[in-house]
Amino acid sequence: MEARYPSESRTILTDLVLPGETNPLNNLFGGELLARMDRAAGIAAGRHSRRIVVTASVNHVAFSKAIPLGSVVTVEAKVSRAFKSSMEVVIDVWIEDRQSGDKTKANEAIYTFVAVNESGAPVSIPQIKPETELEQQRYDAALRRKQLSLVLAGKMKPDDATELKALFT
Amino acid sequence: MEARYPSESRTILTDLVLPGETNPLNNLFGGELLARMDRAAGIAAGRHSRRIVVTASVNHVAFSKAIPLGSVVTVEAKVSRAFKSSMEVVIDVWIEDRQSGDKTKANEAIYTFVAVNESGAPVSIPQIKPETELEQQRYDAALRRKQLSLVLAGKMKPDDATELKALFT
Amino acid sequence: MEARYPSESRTILTDLVLPGETNPLNNLFGGELLARMDRAAGIAAGRHSRRIVVTASVNHVAFSKAIPLGSVVTVEAKVSRAFKSSMEVVIDVWIEDRQSGDKTKANEAIYTFVAVNESGAPVSIPQIKPETELEQQRYDAALRRKQLSLVLAGKMKPDDATELKALFT
Amino acid sequence: MEARYPSESRTILTDLVLPGETNPLNNLFGGELLARMDRAAGIAAGRHSRRIVVTASVNHVAFSKAIPLGSVVTVEAKVSRAFKSSMEVVIDVWIEDRQSGDKTKANEAIYTFVAVNESGAPVSIPQIKPETELEQQRYDAALRRKQLSLVLAGKMKPDDATELKALFT
Amino acid sequence: MEARYPSESRTILTDLVLPGETNPLNNLFGGELLARMDRAAGIAAGRHSRRIVVTASVNHVAFSKAIPLGSVVTVEAKVSRAFKSSMEVVIDVWIEDRQSGDKTKANEAIYTFVAVNESGAPVSIPQIKPETELEQQRYDAALRRKQLSLVLAGKMKPDDATELKALFT
Amino acid sequence: MEARYPSESRTILTDLVLPGETNPLNNLFGGELLARMDRAAGIAAGRHSRRIVVTASVNHVAFSKAIPLGSVVTVEAKVSRAFKSSMEVVIDVWIEDRQSGDKTKANEAIYTFVAVNESGAPVSIPQIKPETELEQQRYDAALRRKQLSLVLAGKMKPDDATELKALFT
Repeated sequence: MEARYPSESRTILTDLVLPGETNPLNNLFGGELLARMDRAAGIAAGRHSRRIVVTASVNHVAFSKAIPLGSVVTVEAKVSRAFKSSMEVVIDVWIEDRQSGDKTKANEAIYTFVAVNESGAPVSIPQIKPETELEQQRYDAALRRKQLSLVLAGKMKPDDATELKALFT
Repeated sequence: MEARYPSESRTILTDLVLPGETNPLNNLFGGELLARMDRAAGIAAGRHSRRIVVTASVNHVAFSKAIPLGSVVTVEAKVSRAFKSSMEVVIDVWIEDRQSGDKTKANEAIYTFVAVNESGAPVSIPQIKPETELEQQRYDAALRRKQLSLVLAGKMKPDDATELKALFT
Repeated sequence: MEARYPSESRTILTDLVLPGETNPLNNLFGGELLARMDRAAGIAAGRHSRRIVVTASVNHVAFSKAIPLGSVVTVEAKVSRAFKSSMEVVIDVWIEDRQSGDKTKANEAIYTFVAVNESGAPVSIPQIKPETELEQQRYDAALRRKQLSLVLAGKMKPDDATELKALFT
Repeated sequence: MEARYPSESRTILTDLVLPGETNPLNNLFGGELLARMDRAAGIAAGRHSRRIVVTASVNHVAFSKAIPLGSVVTVEAKVSRAFKSSMEVVIDVWIEDRQSGDKTKANEAIYTFVAVNESGAPVSIPQIKPETELEQQRYDAALRRKQLSLVLAGKMKPDDATELKALFT
Repeated sequence: MEARYPSESRTILTDLVLPGETNPLNNLFGGELLARMDRAAGIAAGRHSRRIVVTASVNHVAFSKAIPLGSVVTVEAKVSRAFKSSMEVVIDVWIEDRQSGDKTKANEAIYTFVAVNESGAPVSIPQIKPETELEQQRYDAALRRKQLSLVLAGKMKPDDATELKALFT
Repeated sequence: MEARYPSESRTILTDLVLPGETNPLNNLFGGELLARMDRAAGIAAGRHSRRIVVTASVNHVAFSKAIPLGSVVTVEAKVSRAFKSSMEVVIDVWIEDRQSGDKTKANEAIYTFVAVNESGAPVSIPQIKPETELEQQRYDAALRRKQLSLVLAGKMKPDDATELKALFT
């Protein structure tokens, strides 16, 4: 299987914040944003692997900025790194100012998906070749995050998490 | 106000077809697709005009191809022509094959929006400068469609609809 | 197959506008109204043809009047004309004043449906016999709209659209 | 205030059963039907009283027949009796056979609404004049149901529930 | 089959009131509460019977207190009495004050469910052994309610409804 | 402010998986589960702090087990540790077997919330006193997770993350 570029999985979901999707403070309800990111990230994982994919984990989501009712929200997802059958997807969320058209970063999230066959068994997937500098940074960080996740789950000894360990020693 | 390019209003809404959005034949429910197109087209109209916009009419939607459960659907909207305070938005809908990644055109639609101020009164908006050949064709057709709409509504005499009349005489 | 009256397919969908169905201006969200009209019109087409029906096109929808939160909205659909296997359905949308009980026309729309068998192939359907004057007008206009739709799709030469041509010459 | 006929409040909500509204047996989910009946009955109560109305109680709903996915469901609500500021609304639910067009009764329900002013205080409402035999029966039964409800709530002595008592003695 | 305690079927559904679930007065929409109660009560009936269950009737729901947007709502359901294949479920609804943490009763409802096998035929279920005083009261009242329901449906002669008759004579 | 026990914030949201909440494999859609966990966790954070709370981050969610259509799903949330104005909430997700009544762990997640005043500014909150062994473990791990999150965000030097560093050296 030939490796693919992150840009080949790029998925854009631009949508409004309508009243039925807000919390009592009139901002986009957190759960609705988590669901939109899951949909966009799942499509990106499917475009990379050309397989059925299922959400394996949500590794980090920072809600740094409330998104008010009526906003135009762009959710952009790209596969940052592929492992044997799992993929890390990075999601950037932008809102834009109606009058100036300027875009502001509102959230960032990392989801992991696994590619499966019709019976649900994991299958091999193409690797990722980062192109831009940001893609390279995210590619490198993905390995540290994977090690961290394995360590926290007790499936890897801290001592073997070489990439991660380097941060602390 | 300086004219803008259609590409400046380009809006992409890529999303899945989940079971809660299907009809009893397990295809995307027509009403749900109409709603998604309305959201994407409204965002495109807002990006062009940088104003609050309201749907004025749906001029034509052809459901040429059923969209099955589980599909990845891309709704792409661009302003095709601006008039005094109204804009025509053309929407293309694509589905993609999971295994090959090939995209197929599933639907096409034309919506009209009006830009308004906070009290709901129509306001002037920038004009459109088409760039590509397809954008030019849609720009030209938009005028015929507008005349047709005025004639059918009894607000323009068929004789004054010069662009449209040329089709028949 | 015996022809049927438009009244035999008459379908009424009266419902509220709740907060989860509004746009940021607190009026009924356009996409939600399009979906309600699609449901009512599909039922009317099914009642006329007694077949499975699928939305073929939305020919014209004019959003002439915003419908505020809390309104009682009546969507009324009737088949206006039947062709070989397709039907035109006209939809009238009314809102009513709570205190006086008076009804006001808020929107009007025209959808086209096709009757199909279990495998999705088009099937023949009964014709329409208009009874009232308004039904007769809509019946006549339906043919012009069909010709127009064929001409715009490049499937009929403008010269053969006799009903339509008569408008302009 | 002049009394009104039940027919003046008659409200019809005809709609489909889509996949997103079913239970795991592929029939209309009970909670969704309860919600549709609440919407239709609330509109009927508003049409009778021309006031803001709030649901006071659901007195009886019998789910006598499952409603399968894809059904056309007609919910019909009419005020059966008005008291000081509360109204009883009877709701009949019908499904129809696509091929024959025959309608079958699927459910029946009784809801009570109270008319209130802007601050939520109960207000007086017009009385009901039944016209048909069925309307008269429902009008009479409404009083027994009201007495029963008061007795069960401990707000009326069984001995004072004369209409109800007559059933048992 | 051994009898079970009401506490074995106890089901708690605590959730927020978000804007998409309110009525135009900004309180929880009645139909949404009916749906939540149906879901919780159905789970309780399933926990008692360990069978597929379907809603048979909603016997009484009193909306004694409006539930404002943003509230934390707790729906608590327990089987109060089991008959041959049907069960009565009592549902209590509480809201809590954010600052003091105090809970207030907002609604109470009684639903009936029937346990069925895969083909939809009713099946026998375990009986109920009440433990607390409130459970005993609800257990006793359930029989009166069942008789009442049979009398009102014309399936039992008032004279045979001994438990109920005792109330009035 | 007196410290509170984790059990004081315990929040249970038991609900069904209906067809409108599934993915194309007929399992609970990941985004819907993320939304339910957000609602339950937000209520738990509100019960602990008695303040308005907003989602700050989703730190880890492992989707270890697919949850099929028709399942009874219990989402249980408890505050595991409180910092100055932020709280970590641990969420356990269980599904139960209808016939045996046995519960199986399906997912686990960690969300962080911030308590704010009416203007959205962070406010101080009570601390947590763990009672059970599991609560103590989660309390301890919460500090490591917080340090990790600060290190990854570049807001703490790895060298200062003493709790975390101890894992690797």
